[in-house]
Amino acid sequence: MNQLQRITISPDQIENQKITLTSEQYHYLIRVLRLQKSDRFIAMNGQGQWWLAKLLGQQAEIIEPIAIHTELPISVTLIIALPKNGFDEVVKQITELGVTKIIPVISDRTILKPSPQKIDRWRRIANEAAEQSERQIVPEIREPIPFKNSFSLVNQPKYICYARGNSPHLLNYLIPPSNTAITIATGPEGGWTEKEIQEAIAAEFQTVSLGKRILTATLAPIVALSLVTATTEMGSIK
Amino acid sequence: MNQLQRITISPDQIENQKITLTSEQYHYLIRVLRLQKSDRFIAMNGQGQWWLAKLLGQQAEIIEPIAIHTELPISVTLIIALPKNGFDEVVKQITELGVTKIIPVISDRTILKPSPQKIDRWRRIANEAAEQSERQIVPEIREPIPFKNSFSLVNQPKYICYARGNSPHLLNYLIPPSNTAITIATGPEGGWTEKEIQEAIAAEFQTVSLGKRILTATLAPIVALSLVTATTEMGSIK
Repeated sequence: MNQLQRITISPDQIENQKITLTSEQYHYLIRVLRLQKSDRFIAMNGQGQWWLAKLLGQQAEIIEPIAIHTELPISVTLIIALPKNGFDEVVKQITELGVTKIIPVISDRTILKPSPQKIDRWRRIANEAAEQSERQIVPEIREPIPFKNSFSLVNQPKYICYARGNSPHLLNYLIPPSNTAITIATGPEGGWTEKEIQEAIAAEFQTVSLGKRILTATLAPIVALSLVTATTEMGSIK
Repeated sequence: MNQLQRITISPDQIENQKITLTSEQYHYLIRVLRLQKSDRFIAMNGQGQWWLAKLLGQQAEIIEPIAIHTELPISVTLIIALPKNGFDEVVKQITELGVTKIIPVISDRTILKPSPQKIDRWRRIANEAAEQSERQIVPEIREPIPFKNSFSLVNQPKYICYARGNSPHLLNYLIPPSNTAITIATGPEGGWTEKEIQEAIAAEFQTVSLGKRILTATLAPIVALSLVTATTEMGSIK
Protein backbone atom coordinates (compact mmCIF):
# COMPACT_ATOMS: atom_id res chain seq x y z
CA MET A 1 0.00 0.00 0.00
CA ASN A 2 1.39 3.40 -0.86
CA GLN A 3 1.78 5.71 2.04
CA LEU A 4 -1.49 7.54 2.41
CA GLN A 5 -2.08 10.81 4.11
CA ARG A 6 -4.19 10.68 7.19
CA ILE A 7 -6.50 12.95 9.11
CA THR A 8 -8.04 12.49 12.50
CA ILE A 9 -11.79 12.78 12.63
CA SER A 10 -14.34 12.56 15.39
CA PRO A 11 -17.04 9.91 15.28
CA ASP A 12 -19.81 12.47 14.94
CA GLN A 13 -18.46 13.42 11.54
CA ILE A 14 -19.49 10.03 10.17
CA GLU A 15 -23.02 9.34 8.96
CA ASN A 16 -24.18 6.79 6.43
CA GLN A 17 -20.65 5.88 5.41
CA LYS A 18 -19.86 9.49 4.66
CA ILE A 19 -17.55 11.84 6.52
CA THR A 20 -18.49 15.51 6.64
CA LEU A 21 -15.14 17.28 6.77
CA THR A 22 -14.53 20.32 8.93
CA SER A 23 -13.33 23.37 7.04
CA GLU A 24 -9.90 22.92 8.59
CA GLN A 25 -9.67 19.31 7.45
CA TYR A 26 -10.90 20.28 3.99
CA HIS A 27 -8.30 23.02 3.77
CA TYR A 28 -5.61 20.60 4.87
CA LEU A 29 -6.51 17.91 2.35
CA ILE A 30 -7.18 20.17 -0.63
CA ARG A 31 -4.77 23.06 -0.22
CA VAL A 32 -1.94 21.70 1.90
CA LEU A 33 -1.78 18.08 0.73
CA ARG A 34 -3.22 18.92 -2.72
CA LEU A 35 -5.48 15.91 -2.87
CA GLN A 36 -8.06 15.89 -5.63
CA LYS A 37 -11.54 14.45 -5.87
CA SER A 38 -11.44 10.66 -5.79
CA ASP A 39 -8.05 10.58 -4.12
CA ARG A 40 -7.85 8.24 -1.18
CA PHE A 41 -6.72 9.04 2.32
CA ILE A 42 -7.01 7.47 5.73
CA ALA A 43 -9.35 8.71 8.42
CA MET A 44 -8.63 7.72 11.99
CA ASN A 45 -10.32 8.42 15.28
CA GLY A 46 -7.11 8.45 17.30
CA GLN A 47 -8.21 5.46 19.33
CA GLY A 48 -7.37 2.52 17.13
CA GLN A 49 -9.91 2.72 14.32
CA TRP A 50 -8.95 3.53 10.79
CA TRP A 51 -10.93 3.81 7.58
CA LEU A 52 -9.91 4.12 3.98
CA ALA A 53 -11.80 7.11 2.56
CA LYS A 54 -12.25 8.75 -0.81
CA LEU A 55 -12.43 12.50 -1.13
CA LEU A 56 -15.65 13.71 -2.74
CA GLY A 57 -15.49 17.40 -1.92
CA GLN A 58 -16.66 18.82 1.35
CA GLN A 59 -17.40 15.22 2.20
CA ALA A 60 -15.53 11.96 1.92
CA GLU A 61 -16.86 8.49 1.36
CA ILE A 62 -15.78 5.63 3.60
CA ILE A 63 -14.60 2.77 1.42
CA GLU A 64 -13.77 0.27 4.13
CA PRO A 65 -12.25 -0.07 7.58
CA ILE A 66 -8.60 -0.99 7.41
CA ALA A 67 -6.29 -2.90 9.68
CA ILE A 68 -3.20 -1.01 10.57
CA HIS A 69 -0.44 -3.11 12.05
CA THR A 70 2.37 -0.66 12.41
CA GLU A 71 0.60 2.25 13.99
CA LEU A 72 0.15 3.11 17.63
CA PRO A 73 -3.40 2.61 18.88
CA ILE A 74 -3.41 6.09 20.35
CA SER A 75 -2.84 9.44 18.76
CA VAL A 76 0.47 11.02 19.83
CA THR A 77 1.07 14.72 19.23
CA LEU A 78 4.47 16.27 19.73
CA ILE A 79 4.74 20.02 20.18
CA ILE A 80 8.38 20.73 19.40
CA ALA A 81 10.14 24.05 19.85
CA LEU A 82 12.12 24.43 16.65
CA PRO A 83 15.84 23.90 17.19
CA LYS A 84 18.31 25.92 15.17
CA ASN A 85 19.57 22.82 13.40
CA GLY A 86 18.67 19.22 13.13
CA PHE A 87 14.90 19.32 12.83
CA ASP A 88 15.00 17.28 9.61
CA GLU A 89 16.48 14.38 11.56
CA VAL A 90 13.95 14.84 14.34
CA VAL A 91 11.09 14.59 11.84
CA LYS A 92 12.61 11.44 10.39
CA GLN A 93 13.14 9.73 13.70
CA ILE A 94 9.83 10.58 15.33
CA THR A 95 8.11 9.39 12.19
CA GLU A 96 9.93 6.08 12.51
CA LEU A 97 8.82 5.95 16.10
CA GLY A 98 5.16 6.37 15.28
CA VAL A 99 4.21 10.01 15.90
CA THR A 100 0.72 11.00 14.78
CA LYS A 101 0.98 14.76 14.59
CA ILE A 102 3.89 17.17 14.74
CA ILE A 103 3.33 20.77 15.77
CA PRO A 104 6.56 22.76 15.37
CA VAL A 105 6.45 25.89 17.51
CA ILE A 106 8.32 29.13 17.87
CA SER A 107 9.31 29.66 21.49
CA ASP A 108 10.87 32.60 23.31
CA ARG A 109 14.33 31.16 22.76
CA THR A 110 13.76 30.11 19.15
CA ILE A 111 15.28 32.62 16.79
CA LEU A 112 14.46 31.22 13.40
CA LYS A 113 11.14 31.26 11.66
CA PRO A 114 11.36 28.59 9.03
CA SER A 115 10.62 29.20 5.38
CA PRO A 116 7.71 27.48 3.59
CA GLN A 117 10.23 25.39 1.67
CA LYS A 118 11.39 23.85 4.91
CA ILE A 119 7.92 22.71 5.76
CA ASP A 120 7.58 21.04 2.38
CA ARG A 121 10.89 19.35 2.97
CA TRP A 122 9.80 18.09 6.40
CA ARG A 123 6.67 16.59 4.84
CA ARG A 124 8.79 14.85 2.24
CA ILE A 125 11.07 13.51 4.93
CA ALA A 126 8.06 12.25 6.87
CA ASN A 127 6.78 10.49 3.77
CA GLU A 128 10.05 8.71 3.18
CA ALA A 129 10.54 7.81 6.81
CA ALA A 130 7.02 6.40 7.04
CA GLU A 131 7.73 4.19 4.08
CA GLN A 132 11.11 3.04 5.40
CA SER A 133 9.74 2.16 8.79
CA GLU A 134 6.85 0.31 7.16
CA ARG A 135 4.25 2.61 8.54
CA GLN A 136 1.11 2.77 6.48
CA ILE A 137 0.36 6.31 7.55
CA VAL A 138 2.20 9.58 7.23
CA PRO A 139 2.22 11.83 10.28
CA GLU A 140 0.66 15.25 9.97
CA ILE A 141 3.06 18.18 10.18
CA ARG A 142 1.50 21.52 10.91
CA GLU A 143 2.82 24.93 9.97
CA PRO A 144 4.98 26.39 12.76
CA ILE A 145 3.11 28.66 15.15
CA PRO A 146 3.93 30.47 18.38
CA PHE A 147 4.02 28.07 21.30
CA LYS A 148 1.01 29.63 23.01
CA ASN A 149 -1.09 29.13 19.89
CA SER A 150 -0.59 25.39 20.12
CA PHE A 151 -2.48 25.15 23.41
CA SER A 152 -5.90 25.27 21.77
CA LEU A 153 -4.98 22.53 19.31
CA VAL A 154 -4.45 19.77 21.84
CA ASN A 155 -6.39 17.93 24.51
CA GLN A 156 -5.63 16.19 27.77
CA PRO A 157 -3.42 14.61 28.79
CA LYS A 158 -0.78 17.22 27.95
CA TYR A 159 2.79 17.15 29.20
CA ILE A 160 5.61 19.66 28.93
CA CYS A 161 9.16 18.40 29.35
CA TYR A 162 11.09 20.67 31.63
CA ALA A 163 14.76 19.96 32.28
CA ARG A 164 15.06 22.04 35.42
CA GLY A 165 12.82 21.87 38.42
CA ASN A 166 11.65 18.81 40.28
CA SER A 167 8.96 17.42 38.06
CA PRO A 168 8.11 13.73 38.13
CA HIS A 169 9.52 11.65 35.33
CA LEU A 170 7.26 11.39 32.28
CA LEU A 171 7.30 7.61 32.55
CA ASN A 172 5.24 7.78 35.72
CA TYR A 173 2.31 9.08 33.69
CA LEU A 174 2.61 6.47 30.96
CA ILE A 175 2.08 3.40 33.08
CA PRO A 176 -0.56 2.12 32.78
CA PRO A 177 -0.74 3.39 29.19
CA SER A 178 -3.38 5.86 28.12
CA ASN A 179 -6.13 4.83 25.76
CA THR A 180 -6.64 8.37 24.56
CA ALA A 181 -4.61 10.84 22.61
CA ILE A 182 -1.51 12.20 24.33
CA THR A 183 0.42 15.43 23.75
CA ILE A 184 4.00 16.13 24.80
CA ALA A 185 5.85 19.41 24.38
CA THR A 186 9.65 19.63 24.26
CA GLY A 187 11.70 22.80 24.43
CA PRO A 188 14.37 24.62 22.44
CA GLU A 189 18.09 24.88 23.02
CA GLY A 190 18.38 26.74 26.29
CA GLY A 191 15.04 25.35 27.43
CA TRP A 192 11.63 26.86 28.01
CA THR A 193 11.53 30.22 29.77
CA GLU A 194 9.91 30.43 33.18
CA LYS A 195 7.08 32.41 31.58
CA GLU A 196 6.41 29.70 29.02
CA ILE A 197 6.29 27.07 31.74
CA GLN A 198 3.82 29.10 33.74
CA GLU A 199 1.64 29.69 30.70
CA ALA A 200 1.67 26.00 29.89
CA ILE A 201 0.75 25.11 33.46
CA ALA A 202 -2.10 27.62 33.30
CA ALA A 203 -3.22 25.82 30.13
CA GLU A 204 -3.19 22.59 32.13
CA PHE A 205 0.02 21.04 30.89
CA GLN A 206 1.72 18.81 33.44
CA THR A 207 5.45 19.48 33.80
CA VAL A 208 7.54 16.33 33.53
CA SER A 209 11.19 15.42 33.57
CA LEU A 210 13.07 13.26 31.10
CA GLY A 211 15.80 12.36 33.55
CA LYS A 212 18.76 13.82 35.40
CA ARG A 213 20.86 14.76 32.43
CA ILE A 214 20.34 17.76 30.14
CA LEU A 215 19.10 16.54 26.79
CA THR A 216 19.57 18.54 23.61
CA ALA A 217 16.53 19.96 21.89
CA THR A 218 16.78 17.38 19.13
CA LEU A 219 17.01 14.40 21.47
CA ALA A 220 14.20 15.23 23.89
CA PRO A 221 11.29 14.54 21.51
CA ILE A 222 12.81 11.19 20.59
CA VAL A 223 13.20 10.17 24.20
CA ALA A 224 9.67 11.26 25.08
CA LEU A 225 8.17 9.42 22.14
CA SER A 226 10.25 6.29 22.82
CA LEU A 227 8.65 6.12 26.24
CA VAL A 228 5.13 6.54 24.88
CA THR A 229 5.51 3.93 22.17
CA ALA A 230 7.16 1.43 24.48
CA THR A 231 4.57 1.70 27.23
CA THR A 232 1.79 1.52 24.66
CA GLU A 233 3.20 -1.56 22.94
CA MET A 234 4.99 -3.45 25.68
CA GLY A 235 2.19 -5.88 26.11
CA SER A 236 1.13 -6.32 22.52
CA ILE A 237 3.96 -7.33 20.24
CA LYS A 238 2.77 -9.69 17.52
CA MET B 1 34.86 19.58 37.56
CA ASN B 2 36.47 18.81 34.23
CA GLN B 3 35.17 15.73 32.57
CA LEU B 4 37.21 12.85 33.84
CA GLN B 5 37.72 9.51 32.22
CA ARG B 6 36.28 6.61 34.01
CA ILE B 7 36.90 2.92 34.35
CA THR B 8 34.80 0.26 35.94
CA ILE B 9 36.53 -1.81 38.60
CA SER B 10 35.45 -4.69 40.76
CA PRO B 11 35.50 -4.35 44.54
CA ASP B 12 38.22 -6.98 44.93
CA GLN B 13 40.65 -4.69 43.15
CA ILE B 14 40.58 -2.29 46.10
CA GLU B 15 42.73 -2.77 49.16
CA ASN B 16 43.99 -0.19 51.62
CA GLN B 17 42.73 2.69 49.50
CA LYS B 18 44.66 1.42 46.51
CA ILE B 19 43.32 -0.06 43.30
CA THR B 20 45.36 -2.74 41.60
CA LEU B 21 44.59 -2.29 37.93
CA THR B 22 44.11 -5.18 35.57
CA SER B 23 46.44 -5.18 32.60
CA GLU B 24 43.53 -4.28 30.36
CA GLN B 25 42.58 -1.29 32.51
CA TYR B 26 46.23 -0.22 32.66
CA HIS B 27 46.52 -0.44 28.89
CA TYR B 28 43.33 1.57 28.49
CA LEU B 29 44.40 4.36 30.84
CA ILE B 30 48.01 4.63 29.74
CA ARG B 31 47.98 3.81 26.04
CA VAL B 32 44.46 4.60 24.89
CA LEU B 33 43.58 7.58 27.09
CA ARG B 34 47.23 8.63 27.48
CA LEU B 35 46.96 9.42 31.16
CA GLN B 36 50.20 9.99 33.01
CA LYS B 37 51.27 9.30 36.56
CA SER B 38 49.40 11.55 38.98
CA ASP B 39 46.55 12.14 36.53
CA ARG B 40 43.15 11.74 38.04
CA PHE B 41 40.34 9.53 36.80
CA ILE B 42 37.14 8.10 38.18
CA ALA B 43 36.74 4.50 39.25
CA MET B 44 33.24 3.13 39.52
CA ASN B 45 31.83 -0.23 40.46
CA GLY B 46 28.86 -0.02 38.10
CA GLN B 47 26.42 -0.10 40.98
CA GLY B 48 26.31 3.45 42.17
CA GLN B 49 29.68 3.95 43.85
CA TRP B 50 32.34 6.22 42.44
CA TRP B 51 35.77 7.20 43.63
CA LEU B 52 38.21 9.83 42.50
CA ALA B 53 41.53 8.07 41.91
CA LYS B 54 45.08 9.06 41.05
CA LEU B 55 47.15 6.97 38.69
CA LEU B 56 50.39 5.74 40.28
CA GLY B 57 51.43 3.12 37.77
CA GLN B 58 50.13 -0.41 37.86
CA GLN B 59 48.13 0.81 40.81
CA ALA B 60 45.97 3.82 41.51
CA GLU B 61 45.37 5.61 44.78
CA ILE B 62 41.84 6.36 45.92
CA ILE B 63 41.62 10.03 46.82
CA GLU B 64 38.02 10.16 47.94
CA PRO B 65 34.54 8.85 47.17
CA ILE B 66 32.60 11.26 45.00
CA ALA B 67 28.92 12.04 44.61
CA ILE B 68 27.74 11.82 41.07
CA HIS B 69 24.38 13.41 40.42
CA THR B 70 24.01 13.08 36.73
CA GLU B 71 24.97 9.47 36.24
CA LEU B 72 22.79 6.41 36.19
CA PRO B 73 23.21 4.22 39.27
CA ILE B 74 23.73 1.18 37.09
CA SER B 75 26.28 0.49 34.40
CA VAL B 76 24.73 0.40 30.91
CA THR B 77 26.67 -1.12 28.04
CA LEU B 78 25.50 -0.78 24.47
CA ILE B 79 26.81 -3.17 21.84
CA ILE B 80 26.11 -1.38 18.59
CA ALA B 81 26.56 -2.81 15.12
CA LEU B 82 28.28 -0.02 13.23
CA PRO B 83 25.95 1.72 10.78
CA LYS B 84 27.35 2.96 7.49
CA ASN B 85 26.68 6.56 8.48
CA GLY B 86 25.57 8.45 11.48
CA PHE B 87 27.53 6.82 14.27
CA ASP B 88 28.96 10.17 15.36
CA GLU B 89 25.46 11.32 16.21
CA VAL B 90 24.68 8.05 17.97
CA VAL B 91 27.74 8.48 20.19
CA LYS B 92 26.67 12.02 21.00
CA GLN B 93 23.11 11.13 21.85
CA ILE B 94 23.75 8.01 23.89
CA THR B 95 26.36 9.96 25.84
CA GLU B 96 23.73 12.58 26.62
CA LEU B 97 21.44 9.81 27.70
CA GLY B 98 23.92 8.34 30.18
CA VAL B 99 25.57 5.32 28.55
CA THR B 100 28.45 3.82 30.52
CA LYS B 101 30.25 1.82 27.88
CA ILE B 102 29.97 1.66 24.11
CA ILE B 103 31.15 -1.43 22.23
CA PRO B 104 30.95 -0.83 18.49
CA VAL B 105 30.84 -4.14 16.64
CA ILE B 106 31.27 -5.43 13.13
CA SER B 107 28.32 -7.62 12.19
CA ASP B 108 27.63 -9.81 9.17
CA ARG B 109 25.80 -6.96 7.45
CA THR B 110 28.32 -4.27 8.42
CA ILE B 111 30.62 -3.51 5.51
CA LEU B 112 32.90 -0.86 6.89
CA LYS B 113 35.73 -1.34 9.32
CA PRO B 114 36.37 2.06 10.79
CA SER B 115 39.76 3.70 10.79
CA PRO B 116 41.58 4.52 14.03
CA GLN B 117 40.94 8.20 13.37
CA LYS B 118 37.23 7.58 13.63
CA ILE B 119 37.61 6.07 17.05
CA ASP B 120 39.54 9.10 18.24
CA ARG B 121 36.79 11.28 16.86
CA TRP B 122 34.09 9.31 18.67
CA ARG B 123 35.97 9.74 21.93
CA ARG B 124 36.20 13.46 21.33
CA ILE B 125 32.49 13.60 20.60
CA ALA B 126 31.76 11.67 23.78
CA ASN B 127 33.87 14.13 25.78
CA GLU B 128 32.01 17.12 24.40
CA ALA B 129 28.61 15.52 24.77
CA ALA B 130 29.35 14.55 28.36
CA GLU B 131 30.22 18.13 29.15
CA GLN B 132 27.19 19.53 27.38
CA SER B 133 24.79 17.23 29.15
CA GLU B 134 26.45 18.03 32.48
CA ARG B 135 27.64 14.53 33.02
CA GLN B 136 30.70 14.27 35.20
CA ILE B 137 31.87 11.12 33.51
CA VAL B 138 32.85 10.26 29.99
CA PRO B 139 31.59 6.95 28.64
CA GLU B 140 34.14 4.37 27.61
CA ILE B 141 34.28 3.63 23.89
CA ARG B 142 36.03 0.41 22.92
CA GLU B 143 37.74 -0.39 19.68
CA PRO B 144 35.36 -2.05 17.21
CA ILE B 145 35.44 -5.84 17.27
CA PRO B 146 33.48 -8.63 15.62
CA PHE B 147 30.08 -9.04 17.24
CA LYS B 148 30.85 -12.50 18.58
CA ASN B 149 33.93 -11.18 20.36
CA SER B 150 31.76 -8.85 22.42
CA PHE B 151 29.99 -11.73 24.15
CA SER B 152 32.82 -12.36 26.60
CA LEU B 153 32.99 -8.71 27.57
CA VAL B 154 29.54 -8.44 29.08
CA ASN B 155 27.49 -10.00 31.84
CA GLN B 156 23.85 -10.71 32.53
CA PRO B 157 21.36 -9.38 31.93
CA LYS B 158 22.03 -9.15 28.21
CA TYR B 159 19.47 -8.22 25.58
CA ILE B 160 19.60 -8.22 21.80
CA CYS B 161 17.10 -6.07 19.95
CA TYR B 162 15.58 -7.99 17.11
CA ALA B 163 13.11 -6.25 14.81
CA ARG B 164 11.57 -9.36 13.35
CA GLY B 165 10.20 -12.27 15.30
CA ASN B 166 7.89 -12.20 18.26
CA SER B 167 10.11 -11.19 21.11
CA PRO B 168 8.69 -9.44 24.15
CA HIS B 169 9.20 -5.72 24.32
CA LEU B 170 12.42 -4.67 26.06
CA LEU B 171 10.40 -2.57 28.49
CA ASN B 172 8.99 -5.70 30.08
CA TYR B 173 12.45 -6.53 31.38
CA LEU B 174 13.16 -3.07 32.72
CA ILE B 175 10.35 -2.86 35.21
CA PRO B 176 11.14 -3.16 38.04
CA PRO B 177 14.54 -1.67 37.20
CA SER B 178 17.70 -3.70 37.54
CA ASN B 179 20.22 -2.85 40.20
CA THR B 180 23.04 -4.43 38.24
CA ALA B 181 24.80 -3.68 35.02
CA ILE B 182 22.76 -4.14 31.85
CA THR B 183 23.85 -4.78 28.27
CA ILE B 184 21.79 -4.19 25.14
CA ALA B 185 22.84 -5.01 21.58
CA THR B 186 21.32 -3.26 18.55
CA GLY B 187 21.78 -4.30 14.94
CA PRO B 188 22.97 -2.82 11.65
CA GLU B 189 20.99 -1.59 8.68
CA GLY B 190 19.25 -4.69 7.41
CA GLY B 191 19.22 -6.18 10.87
CA TRP B 192 21.00 -9.08 12.53
CA THR B 193 21.29 -12.27 10.51
CA GLU B 194 19.52 -15.37 11.74
CA LYS B 195 22.93 -16.86 12.53
CA GLU B 196 23.91 -13.89 14.68
CA ILE B 197 20.66 -14.12 16.61
CA GLN B 198 21.19 -17.83 17.25
CA GLU B 199 24.76 -17.23 18.39
CA ALA B 200 23.62 -14.48 20.73
CA ILE B 201 20.90 -16.70 22.15
CA ALA B 202 23.48 -19.43 22.68
CA ALA B 203 25.54 -16.85 24.56
CA GLU B 204 22.47 -16.20 26.72
CA PHE B 205 21.25 -12.95 25.24
CA GLN B 206 17.50 -12.46 25.52
CA THR B 207 15.89 -11.33 22.26
CA VAL B 208 13.67 -8.30 22.69
CA SER B 209 11.58 -6.06 20.52
CA LEU B 210 11.61 -2.27 20.38
CA GLY B 211 8.09 -2.03 18.99
CA LYS B 212 6.07 -2.69 15.87
CA ARG B 213 7.84 -0.36 13.53
CA ILE B 214 11.21 -0.90 11.89
CA LEU B 215 13.75 1.41 13.49
CA THR B 216 16.88 2.50 11.70
CA ALA B 217 20.23 1.32 13.01
CA THR B 218 20.99 4.78 14.36
CA LEU B 219 17.70 5.14 16.22
CA ALA B 220 17.51 1.75 17.93
CA PRO B 221 20.29 2.34 20.49
CA ILE B 222 18.73 5.65 21.46
CA VAL B 223 15.32 4.11 21.98
CA ALA B 224 16.75 1.22 23.99
CA LEU B 225 18.78 3.51 26.20
CA SER B 226 15.86 5.92 26.69
CA LEU B 227 13.89 3.06 28.17
CA VAL B 228 16.70 2.02 30.50
CA THR B 229 17.36 5.52 31.79
CA ALA B 230 13.68 6.30 32.25
CA THR B 231 12.88 3.12 34.17
CA THR B 232 15.98 3.58 36.29
CA GLU B 233 15.21 7.20 37.12
CA MET B 234 11.43 7.39 37.11
CA GLY B 235 11.19 7.24 40.84
CA SER B 236 14.19 9.31 41.79
CA ILE B 237 14.14 12.72 40.22
CA LYS B 238 15.60 15.27 42.62
